[in-house]
Amino acid sequence: MPRASSATLKRRHQRVREAAARRQIDALVVTTRSNILYLTNFTGSAAIVVVTPDRIHFVTDFRYVTAIEDLQNTPHACPELDLTVVDGAYDPTLVRLVASLGVSRLGFEAANMTVSRHAWIAAAFGGEGAASPALVPTEQLVERIRVTKDADEIETLRTAASLLSEVARGVFEEIVHGRTERDVALAIDSRIRRAGFERPAFDTIVASGPRAALPHAMPGERRLSEHDLVVLDFGGVYDSYCVDLTRTVSVGRADERAREVHAAVLEAHDRAIRTVEPGMSRFAVDAAARDWLTARGMGEAFGHGTGHGLGIDVHEDPRITRPTPDSPGSDGDRDLAAGMVFTIEPGAYFPGWGGVRIEDDVLVTDHGVDVLTNVTTHLLEL
Amino acid sequence: MPRASSATLKRRHQRVREAAARRQIDALVVTTRSNILYLTNFTGSAAIVVVTPDRIHFVTDFRYVTAIEDLQNTPHACPELDLTVVDGAYDPTLVRLVASLGVSRLGFEAANMTVSRHAWIAAAFGGEGAASPALVPTEQLVERIRVTKDADEIETLRTAASLLSEVARGVFEEIVHGRTERDVALAIDSRIRRAGFERPAFDTIVASGPRAALPHAMPGERRLSEHDLVVLDFGGVYDSYCVDLTRTVSVGRADERAREVHAAVLEAHDRAIRTVEPGMSRFAVDAAARDWLTARGMGEAFGHGTGHGLGIDVHEDPRITRPTPDSPGSDGDRDLAAGMVFTIEPGAYFPGWGGVRIEDDVLVTDHGVDVLTNVTTHLLEL
Repeated sequence: MPRASSATLKRRHQRVREAAARRQIDALVVTTRSNILYLTNFTGSAAIVVVTPDRIHFVTDFRYVTAIEDLQNTPHACPELDLTVVDGAYDPTLVRLVASLGVSRLGFEAANMTVSRHAWIAAAFGGEGAASPALVPTEQLVERIRVTKDADEIETLRTAASLLSEVARGVFEEIVHGRTERDVALAIDSRIRRAGFERPAFDTIVASGPRAALPHAMPGERRLSEHDLVVLDFGGVYDSYCVDLTRTVSVGRADERAREVHAAVLEAHDRAIRTVEPGMSRFAVDAAARDWLTARGMGEAFGHGTGHGLGIDVHEDPRITRPTPDSPGSDGDRDLAAGMVFTIEPGAYFPGWGGVRIEDDVLVTDHGVDVLTNVTTHLLEL
Repeated sequence: MPRASSATLKRRHQRVREAAARRQIDALVVTTRSNILYLTNFTGSAAIVVVTPDRIHFVTDFRYVTAIEDLQNTPHACPELDLTVVDGAYDPTLVRLVASLGVSRLGFEAANMTVSRHAWIAAAFGGEGAASPALVPTEQLVERIRVTKDADEIETLRTAASLLSEVARGVFEEIVHGRTERDVALAIDSRIRRAGFERPAFDTIVASGPRAALPHAMPGERRLSEHDLVVLDFGGVYDSYCVDLTRTVSVGRADERAREVHAAVLEAHDRAIRTVEPGMSRFAVDAAARDWLTARGMGEAFGHGTGHGLGIDVHEDPRITRPTPDSPGSDGDRDLAAGMVFTIEPGAYFPGWGGVRIEDDVLVTDHGVDVLTNVTTHLLEL
């Protein structure tokens, strides 16, 4: 269950209403599941929310009515909620609801709504007789608010990161010569659940020896063997929030090359973290890690971004990456700000040899950075 | 890993090309992950496929290049595959690829592509200089082919259903007076993985006592107690294919009401299964279960459909439901056909009291039906 209090939800609604008002939107249809959870504490799989200046219209089907009624009797109740139970299917119910509200400009989430669904809804308003609202595409209206975490979220993420660090310390005991990657991954997943997480935040990665060169390898039947480097990347969902951690360990003694790559990646990781503070460009954080690796001839070997935001989604803004043609240089409202939580996870991968990745979760504070995960970054020889 | 042979993939491509040709589409952009897997055996999380009359253009990023190259050296290689590695981001790479192919009508999957993405791609073609292709929305072009399973898929689903039945027999041992729902759910997930499934197919449901009235309850801290009915609904993903099974058991002796509801749901389940044969309307299968429950005063208590298709997705066509305003009566090409695989899972739920659901997975054969799952349907008192 999510932890946001009714007062926190109300503040979130206020920010969404302000953003909608700036675009002259009378009502915003929220279909993205993580945005619905953020605005209502609802954790079910199916619902639509319509945010108007004074109500939160909540559309769901019979399966979730009891869950919503129960939620509304707690300190986590969603303020100003009006429940509409789906009659038949979701989108016809939505169209009837919106028609009854007399909306003239209806915002929708263009990055979530499919072309089919949009076409159906537009046609259905035509059929409702009354004047159809203009359908106004919005981009990241709720997501831009989610990118800086409020106190309730920071508390949840801090607890989650601490639990995941505890899991990591136990995970090191699972690294045993001769075990398969798949076995180790199952043991990690079991530890994640027993620690109190709802579930792993993504498919756990255990990539050993040359397979560690594949940044997203699925754990397989390969057995851990002497001198392997093993990338262990796992995460958990706690009270609906995701945390994510990676360590690379050695099975038995690490050779020179392994030590050298691990040390380079670790220094890149530390440099990126030291760069983090409010007002800093996210690109500068990426550059702090990348420039260090590039200077050591490992720039090509670092083929992904330095990090990604954490929250209800395991990958959200801010993206700690190189500038892209769409967002060259600093990009203003996306610079780092207090309350942002993201990963720092540089890596270096060499086909045929293997790879190293080291990942922690950080919070931007008013004056700098707070590292939420807390596990040794030394190269462990297990 | 999926099991489709190269010859099977080739037959699938042929059917997609025929469907595209009927719509005068020169190239079809496939963005739906399960459709990509169906056409290529690729199980990664990011790729775009462009199907043309003679090639399968496969766009992915550096993370998956090795995986694709490895796949191409097996009997499961995707025929006629041309690999394009993403340079920068996916959609710009796609636009450049399509521009180089000289396409005039470009199909896309309207139920998967978002409004934002569609707008970006349409604008980008404008910027490419050459004549822009017409973007043609398609609906369920690949999904309609997927709805009847080929021999490779039936073999996989048969094995998966047999494994899941074995899991179910073990699950009954986990039903112990005093255990929490959450504990039982963790034990079920662990059994699913140990049986050889890649992962649970969805969040496992363990709903006991009055909580069994919530068809999608999350397992909670409630402890199993004497006379509880417990709904156990779980599934697994095996070689990328999903199977799904539900049993409702009693903790200790079941009372009269529990027996009565269980018997009614079981008879509804059996009647629905007996109705299944090629050419039958899917609505008739739903009615076979629903009419029986309605005649016993439990029609209102059965608030969901009788079943859903199984395959790469855990919910796919055919939907075994009541007719909707969109599809009254029989709907021709959606009638049952040999090779379809779906669940039969009637239920009855009474707020404050609890509920019963019984679910098996069935295959439509040339002459009737084959029940793939195989676990007792008696009301077990554990």
